[in-house]
Amino acid sequence: MSRILVDAMGGDYAPTEIIRGTVQAWEEYKRPITLIGKELTILEELRAAGADPADFTIVDASEVIENEETPTTAIRRKKDSSLVKAFEILREEHDSILISAGSTGAVLTGALLKVGRIKGVSRPGLAPLLPNPSGGSLLIDCGANVDSKPENLVDFAIMGSIYMEKVMGRENPTVGLINNGVEEKKGNALAKEAHQLLKQCPAIRFAGNVEARDVTSGAVDVLVCDGFVGNVVLKEAEGVASTLMGMIKDALYKSFLTKMAALVLKPGLTKVKALLNAEEYGGAPLLGINGGVIKAHGNSNAYAFKNAIRQAITFQENEVLRHIRTQMEAKKGNKG
Amino acid sequence: MSRILVDAMGGDYAPTEIIRGTVQAWEEYKRPITLIGKELTILEELRAAGADPADFTIVDASEVIENEETPTTAIRRKKDSSLVKAFEILREEHDSILISAGSTGAVLTGALLKVGRIKGVSRPGLAPLLPNPSGGSLLIDCGANVDSKPENLVDFAIMGSIYMEKVMGRENPTVGLINNGVEEKKGNALAKEAHQLLKQCPAIRFAGNVEARDVTSGAVDVLVCDGFVGNVVLKEAEGVASTLMGMIKDALYKSFLTKMAALVLKPGLTKVKALLNAEEYGGAPLLGINGGVIKAHGNSNAYAFKNAIRQAITFQENEVLRHIRTQMEAKKGNKG
Repeated sequence: MSRILVDAMGGDYAPTEIIRGTVQAWEEYKRPITLIGKELTILEELRAAGADPADFTIVDASEVIENEETPTTAIRRKKDSSLVKAFEILREEHDSILISAGSTGAVLTGALLKVGRIKGVSRPGLAPLLPNPSGGSLLIDCGANVDSKPENLVDFAIMGSIYMEKVMGRENPTVGLINNGVEEKKGNALAKEAHQLLKQCPAIRFAGNVEARDVTSGAVDVLVCDGFVGNVVLKEAEGVASTLMGMIKDALYKSFLTKMAALVLKPGLTKVKALLNAEEYGGAPLLGINGGVIKAHGNSNAYAFKNAIRQAITFQENEVLRHIRTQMEAKKGNKG
Repeated sequence: MSRILVDAMGGDYAPTEIIRGTVQAWEEYKRPITLIGKELTILEELRAAGADPADFTIVDASEVIENEETPTTAIRRKKDSSLVKAFEILREEHDSILISAGSTGAVLTGALLKVGRIKGVSRPGLAPLLPNPSGGSLLIDCGANVDSKPENLVDFAIMGSIYMEKVMGRENPTVGLINNGVEEKKGNALAKEAHQLLKQCPAIRFAGNVEARDVTSGAVDVLVCDGFVGNVVLKEAEGVASTLMGMIKDALYKSFLTKMAALVLKPGLTKVKALLNAEEYGGAPLLGINGGVIKAHGNSNAYAFKNAIRQAITFQENEVLRHIRTQMEAKKGNKG
């Protein structure tokens, strides 16, 4: 069985925005969706969103995992939480896909403890799309692990390449290693060793090192790095963009004349803003788990969550999991 | 003796722009400046810049270290290079200050091999100013080391605080540790241990962890991190800003109307661009070396280099080195 599992209670604007987004996705894509969470609340929200509850499967879960909770403790203790129950369904139905806007730590921990890794995967990687003018690059890992080994980065590269090909339609995607210089011998101990392994890996198209000044230029399809560095790269892109757009907004609203000028420029600047808007991109797949997992942004509104569901459908339709399983098994076979 | 030592041959636009900038600095600040490099070339360039060569001391050096050379080999073999000769003067005159726009690797290696560390400093740190609307934060380390230990980060924090107080006039400056979350227990092994050491260090005002989304918001005066991460932070800020400004430029030059609007907005946008312009900020001090070292940007033009000399003068006038020496000795004393 293959269905879409929605954690109705996870996210800053859950359950209202999550359920609204789910209803919009149902109207647009007509795929079987299961909502997990407090049944009465879900029924109420579905009706408020103008939906027919009969179109959805609802699985009741009385507890909610909050952002502040320690992930391991929360996953172990809150057995009746929407997230734990969703993962338990996913464990039985490996070809289903779970979407949650809840605590990143809890999603990562739950995925590992309740579902587990695909055979041959040393570590799963969280892989958001980093926006750029050429349609984005996949950044993997972005915080599923903070102290990675070189072989983890090779797994990230293989899984990231499959995702970019199958979900984003990039043919023969290129992989770059984030490093402090383009030269082969550059890097800290991890980057140097990972570079050598990536160079020798036949399953990917390695394009060498990428300096951080090029991470948003769209030079490669997949950007590979340690989760600590990936977290820095992702959050800094958001931060710099927001600081800059704030300053530009100040310049636009300075006087009557600049406000008039701003009106003329609005369509062009709206395009820039849209590019930076995480809502367009859906969520970040957690690759390497033996089941589909999409982590939607914590502050997802209905539109962002609908896009995360669209992404989940593409993930399923293109059998990303089956491809990762095959490739990682083969890698293991090659090694032995 | 305390003078300004200029590596006349280092930099993408050396010697012309370097010498022009030096002449401008002489005209503006009237401090004794020594130019190190090919004597005849320097004399020619000084005259071309309309200066009187008698105002400068010139030290002849027949060789130039290029960007592509392996730093250690270049420093060891090119004994008559402008950079090696400049460092040899600095070794004898610890209170002088050297400014070079040459290869970063060669400047770091030369400083360590020819001049050495201040007693009590575990590792020197390269510390550029990361621009933000509140006047910038010092980012230390930014690539002098790629695999750091927690105690290195404490030294960076102490030295960075002294620099921000003495050179940038920040009273009682705050220190933030770049990390993948603000909570104390967040981080990779290095960040977790460094957090505990920074918290206990009486010589600094520790403000806790800073996420990468806040590195350009000006939340703290000194941002401490491993050199690999610092390199990513610095280069990504440049890259994201340049990608964004490129997109905004496209929006401004789209049609006749948008070009008119762009004219109205020009003063405001010029301010944004100025903020992002590394030329305004001078160079990055290499803190922890037993002599003043300022690494100017490789692509420095005359204006940028003049600003690096201005920064060197402030560095000398406020006796940054003496303060670092005293503080690091005290730290050592406390530990023993």
